[in-house]
Amino acid sequence: MSRTITLTTDFGTRDGYVGAIKGVIRGLAPKVILEDITHDITPGRVDEAAFVLENFHACYPPCTVHLVVVDPEVGSPRRALAVVSTGRFYVGPDNGVFEIAFSTDEHFTCYELTNETYHRKPVSRTFHGRDIFAPAAAHLAAGLGPEKLGGPINDPVRLEPPAAAAAAQPEEGQLTGHVVHADRFGNLVTDIRERDLELISPDKSRILVSCCGVEIEGVSDFYAQAAKGNFLALIGSSGRLEVALREGSAAKTLGDSARDASIKIRKSTG
Amino acid sequence: MSRTITLTTDFGTRDGYVGAIKGVIRGLAPKVILEDITHDITPGRVDEAAFVLENFHACYPPCTVHLVVVDPEVGSPRRALAVVSTGRFYVGPDNGVFEIAFSTDEHFTCYELTNETYHRKPVSRTFHGRDIFAPAAAHLAAGLGPEKLGGPINDPVRLEPPAAAAAAQPEEGQLTGHVVHADRFGNLVTDIRERDLELISPDKSRILVSCCGVEIEGVSDFYAQAAKGNFLALIGSSGRLEVALREGSAAKTLGDSARDASIKIRKSTG
Amino acid sequence: MSRTITLTTDFGTRDGYVGAIKGVIRGLAPKVILEDITHDITPGRVDEAAFVLENFHACYPPCTVHLVVVDPEVGSPRRALAVVSTGRFYVGPDNGVFEIAFSTDEHFTCYELTNETYHRKPVSRTFHGRDIFAPAAAHLAAGLGPEKLGGPINDPVRLEPPAAAAAAQPEEGQLTGHVVHADRFGNLVTDIRERDLELISPDKSRILVSCCGVEIEGVSDFYAQAAKGNFLALIGSSGRLEVALREGSAAKTLGDSARDASIKIRKSTG
Repeated sequence: MSRTITLTTDFGTRDGYVGAIKGVIRGLAPKVILEDITHDITPGRVDEAAFVLENFHACYPPCTVHLVVVDPEVGSPRRALAVVSTGRFYVGPDNGVFEIAFSTDEHFTCYELTNETYHRKPVSRTFHGRDIFAPAAAHLAAGLGPEKLGGPINDPVRLEPPAAAAAAQPEEGQLTGHVVHADRFGNLVTDIRERDLELISPDKSRILVSCCGVEIEGVSDFYAQAAKGNFLALIGSSGRLEVALREGSAAKTLGDSARDASIKIRKSTG
Repeated sequence: MSRTITLTTDFGTRDGYVGAIKGVIRGLAPKVILEDITHDITPGRVDEAAFVLENFHACYPPCTVHLVVVDPEVGSPRRALAVVSTGRFYVGPDNGVFEIAFSTDEHFTCYELTNETYHRKPVSRTFHGRDIFAPAAAHLAAGLGPEKLGGPINDPVRLEPPAAAAAAQPEEGQLTGHVVHADRFGNLVTDIRERDLELISPDKSRILVSCCGVEIEGVSDFYAQAAKGNFLALIGSSGRLEVALREGSAAKTLGDSARDASIKIRKSTG
Repeated sequence: MSRTITLTTDFGTRDGYVGAIKGVIRGLAPKVILEDITHDITPGRVDEAAFVLENFHACYPPCTVHLVVVDPEVGSPRRALAVVSTGRFYVGPDNGVFEIAFSTDEHFTCYELTNETYHRKPVSRTFHGRDIFAPAAAHLAAGLGPEKLGGPINDPVRLEPPAAAAAAQPEEGQLTGHVVHADRFGNLVTDIRERDLELISPDKSRILVSCCGVEIEGVSDFYAQAAKGNFLALIGSSGRLEVALREGSAAKTLGDSARDASIKIRKSTG
């Protein structure tokens, strides 16, 4: 059996740690397909890894193994997990990084990676990516049942419910959300979803977006719709409202405070 | 059928966009080989992506699919293309990024990716990389004929003819070109080709190169030929004249203006 | 036959050089598995590449080909090598980058890549990665015997014997080593090994570590064992003593001088 393992870490590539993980996988599962997602997660930022995972996990076919190693508590009693959700596997630390796997499939199952048969010995106290997670991912990709890796658990660490869910209760015809991510293009991605907008107005041209003192009238369909140097709002590829600057970086132009700014949506009275 | 798809984008890896593209390809073409070229093209810089593509495309065997997503006009009426040139495939936006495919094979063919059968639905207005280009590349790699993806076109967007072609008309025994790229080592790559030099003097030791106030006598064969801290000129691996600094960075030492400086070549009178 | 080739270079990815190397390999060995380790070695830093190689090479199964191109002397008379060590292959320049392959297997064999049959023609004087090393790696991965690539040599360039070996002679109950690497997390990796510590005290809680004016009592088992903002010492995943800062960067906090600081170990008298 030959499956795909994706790799998402905060290791960078200059220290050889990712190389070690790939080597362990290759040794255990010679035919598996290994695909780098990123190794540039900010060190220790579980929320950032969880966000990235949300953006790509469902594009992969069933039986893919998503290996995520952002693990600031490595060596402590935090648990090591394999998760099964919507037919895909997720392997990594029990720190909330798999929130999207839990929230999209209420029938998810979780196993704690306690079966030492599938650990690489000796297990380093500082590098479970190489010694516990990589072997687990390789064995799953090679067809091992996840229940062989350890006993089931039903209380994995969850991330805070996204602010969006709470914010999406419009009050007096307006709605408040937050910037949750600034992407490479400087687009400010928010926790407001397309369906949230529809509660304010089904006509996107009548929606007013306010963020960091900038007022944007109407929600565009694509970036090139705005004139150069103008701000625009649009629904991005992940279904979230974004604030962007045509041929520029909204994040840079609005400054550091934009990265977790609040954003207000209301209906135009015009 | 199992072919290779190369990936060249300006997405970086920290937002999960490249992960989404890879997932879509993997779902449609489970056995295809995916190879990252770079995701670090400066956002929106079509010329930079075109230059990188020129440096690697022909090293790949026939039937390789080169997927290039640098697409600042995504969502606008700019067209989406599949190109066939010298037996290789090229998939991406119609913005000139495939200039090298057009200029090296006058019998190239182009198809507009209008057949919605091969789109991922719903098609995002902001992420054709995931919803139009990735599926097209996957289907080509799986053996689909390019003509199935949409109708032929014969007027793809072309980049400006490289300045080198014009500059390569020596006047009064000298020739003027330009720096077109500063590479990671700080080498200044120009639009002057080896054959252009031969028009000035077949004896490389008698060629004088002037750039940013630096005079270099003779064209070296390799970097280590110069003494530490000395500038040198040589024909780089892509057949272009380069200005380099031994164990240093010519780009950093000569400053920002070097990145598009003019460069003069004449015959030594000595 | 289908083997794995790993890639470690100082090329970055923005110039297309790595793309060219991958393309040449793919053309010669269509089914080989290519795995990126890093392309972000500091340009020309052979010692850095040697350190990274040490951290991952042995995680890969036998018959893996480790291709390392950090080659500041390219084009000069420096030799091009294929090395066989502990059943793995190493391909790259003869500049000491393969020290770990030499020091871990006294029966290593070395071949100089002189057989032009296996070169890509014409051979550029500035890009042996593409024209000499990539073809050699591809042919080895496809099953060619390394002796076909050129004649044997027995005097490859070696790196300085690591300072650790010398330092590991404790004098008057103390031992001096050096920081050799600062990793992405800001952990200061030293040339002191776990076995060196045991010469000072078999009880790790009684070892005192001094580095850049910081005194650390005891050697921890994992990072999260220290309180936030506290320094700690521990044996890292490669078996070397590290100095770390809990939820911070020891390298940044201690400043540039920490990157090659000396580090003293002695037994606590408490």
